[in-house]
Amino acid sequence: MRYEEFTIEGRNAVREAFRSGKTIDKLYVQDGCQDGPIVAIKKEAKKQDTIIRYVTRERLDQMSNTGRHQGVIAMAAAYEYATVEEILQAAKEKQEPPFLILLDNIEDPHNLGAIIRTANLAGAHGVIIPKNRAAGLTAGVARASAGALNYTPVAKVTNLAKTIEELKKQGLWFVCADMSGTVMYDVDLKGPIGLVIGSEGEGVGRLVKEKCDMVASIPMKGNIDSLNASVAMGVLTYEAVRQRSGGNS
Amino acid sequence: MRYEEFTIEGRNAVREAFRSGKTIDKLYVQDGCQDGPIVAIKKEAKKQDTIIRYVTRERLDQMSNTGRHQGVIAMAAAYEYATVEEILQAAKEKQEPPFLILLDNIEDPHNLGAIIRTANLAGAHGVIIPKNRAAGLTAGVARASAGALNYTPVAKVTNLAKTIEELKKQGLWFVCADMSGTVMYDVDLKGPIGLVIGSEGEGVGRLVKEKCDMVASIPMKGNIDSLNASVAMGVLTYEAVRQRSGGNS
Repeated sequence: MRYEEFTIEGRNAVREAFRSGKTIDKLYVQDGCQDGPIVAIKKEAKKQDTIIRYVTRERLDQMSNTGRHQGVIAMAAAYEYATVEEILQAAKEKQEPPFLILLDNIEDPHNLGAIIRTANLAGAHGVIIPKNRAAGLTAGVARASAGALNYTPVAKVTNLAKTIEELKKQGLWFVCADMSGTVMYDVDLKGPIGLVIGSEGEGVGRLVKEKCDMVASIPMKGNIDSLNASVAMGVLTYEAVRQRSGGNS
Repeated sequence: MRYEEFTIEGRNAVREAFRSGKTIDKLYVQDGCQDGPIVAIKKEAKKQDTIIRYVTRERLDQMSNTGRHQGVIAMAAAYEYATVEEILQAAKEKQEPPFLILLDNIEDPHNLGAIIRTANLAGAHGVIIPKNRAAGLTAGVARASAGALNYTPVAKVTNLAKTIEELKKQGLWFVCADMSGTVMYDVDLKGPIGLVIGSEGEGVGRLVKEKCDMVASIPMKGNIDSLNASVAMGVLTYEAVRQRSGGNS
């Protein structure tokens, strides 16, 4: 695996990256660029569900390492993504019921890295993030994961709700973290499971939440609204670890 | 409470700050400065156990907001510290057994903020940090605490081991988080308690650890060494919340 976070700049390089099947996390296009090559690149990006952001020329200039972006910069993943199937396979090989972490709206690389780190130590088999509105597997995420990104597979999916639906057919069930839910001690977190964690501000999106079988809440006694997203993930994930190991004192 | 993080610059201003009893988190002194006023300031700093750091003139120039530091800059707390007695008083007023969080070697403001946030939501009565090698209550910590710093008192003590000793006389007992310990489900975390959390790299210092009654560990199944410090604190603290609320599924 490579550690370097990198940008791909210029029309030919970006088009070539798409053609070669490289995972592009985000495509930045200069506002108002409408010529043929740009249109072709945007078409390719849409085909692969890459997020497109329209930005000013000044912003592209700032992002550029080469100074020759020609109105388009692609952000490539520094790490390779896994597939959902590979994550399930990892569980199978360990002869354990699948234990997955799904993230909705986690855009902060520091939180994403800390979550991958916790997933690794809690024995989860993988992390699933949506293509849209998620931090990519950049060098910053790798650093915050303290090396866990080398061990714990991360899959990127187009539609989190649809992925949940498909995995339910394979016998998994899904628990969404939300303040409105049943206190987590009373939710069964054993067996083949996916924990769905949202962002601090918005929580888990409505469509994703509706697909979940249960909603679990972390007890809150204080004066403020919510835990840090990576702490909330850690607390709920370790409640699952406790239940799965039969730990009770 | 004030939100502004601030520096106090120049010899008169810094000396005045010490005289007025203002809490100074750190004192930066230019390498080689040995004249009378600087010596007087250093003497005052030592009396109040303020950390002194010797830095180059260039570093002071960078830190300076006024451009007139005269070889000395003090970093003042943006928030007022509480006393340990005030924290115990808060527990008494709520008619709850004291539930304290003690931090050793947590120097990262982001982690300190997230920990204060978790302490608030977990219903802990306060956080105790050592004067030496701890992040101060800066604006960055306040931001990461998501407002919890307005509610959860933080006390700064000269010697964490000594504070633990004194609190033990008042009936508290102390549990140190460390990988070498008993798995946390088997450690009694009820009653008047202090949880002692160390940094990711170094853990809890030896002298502090020796004062603790019990050592508790978080189960680790993965390939890497340790959880993020604020996640580890969250997981252990919420195991205490579970035990204290009688939550068992």
